[in-house]
Amino acid sequence: MTIFSRIIEGEIPCHRVFEDDHVLAFLDVAPLSRGHTLVIPKEAKATMAELSDDAAAALGRVLPRICRAVCQATGATDYNLLQNNGAAAQQVVMHVHIHIVPRYPDAGLDLGWTAGSLGDDAEEIAGRMAELIGADGS
Amino acid sequence: MTIFSRIIEGEIPCHRVFEDDHVLAFLDVAPLSRGHTLVIPKEAKATMAELSDDAAAALGRVLPRICRAVCQATGATDYNLLQNNGAAAQQVVMHVHIHIVPRYPDAGLDLGWTAGSLGDDAEEIAGRMAELIGADGS
Repeated sequence: MTIFSRIIEGEIPCHRVFEDDHVLAFLDVAPLSRGHTLVIPKEAKATMAELSDDAAAALGRVLPRICRAVCQATGATDYNLLQNNGAAAQQVVMHVHIHIVPRYPDAGLDLGWTAGSLGDDAEEIAGRMAELIGADGS
Repeated sequence: MTIFSRIIEGEIPCHRVFEDDHVLAFLDVAPLSRGHTLVIPKEAKATMAELSDDAAAALGRVLPRICRAVCQATGATDYNLLQNNGAAAQQVVMHVHIHIVPRYPDAGLDLGWTAGSLGDDAEEIAGRMAELIGADGS
């Protein structure tokens, strides 16, 4: 059981922003910027790949209105959504959470972005993914 | 009209990974790592805050299966989902897109993460957000 399940259960308090049957949103206690909000499914899964389709749809459905509220409450116009899966991807709490990080000039998030180009195997990789999604029951 | 609308229309080719009535997924042509995939709503909106609830739900619903396919096809176990809104948040194409970036030791994504702590106005900000979401028609 992670700290997020305990927050969902109400054992640990949070600065609650939104809650419905499937989703809880609250302020991150270690914010990268003012208004940094976490949006989590109540379904306790570590990664996006493990989440049920229904939980993921419920999570997606509330993002636009939470993003609008974050912007309106903070005055931010630009923001990043970030969801880390696995320790190598800088995930710390092993319960799915989407970070909404308002971007001000002094935000504590710095995206180092070093783009490459597609390899010769791009067509093969895309085809394999498409096949796997089909095989997955789509 | 952005380049993504032209990809949806089929005017510009892509390495397609997934498509349904509401969502298209394809390989990023300037990948941060092997298997870097973009997931976009067919609804042409620039930011998550502008997206309809239904489009956002449809986008969320397909993420688990696309994440599984990205991992299975590439061998990656860890990955980041990233969705940038606005130029200050490093958005380049002004049509909502979720990056799925597999994280290998040499991935081209480097998250500089400088966490702070909650300010004295946390309760007030959370309360304002909650109120705005309520006012928004929830």
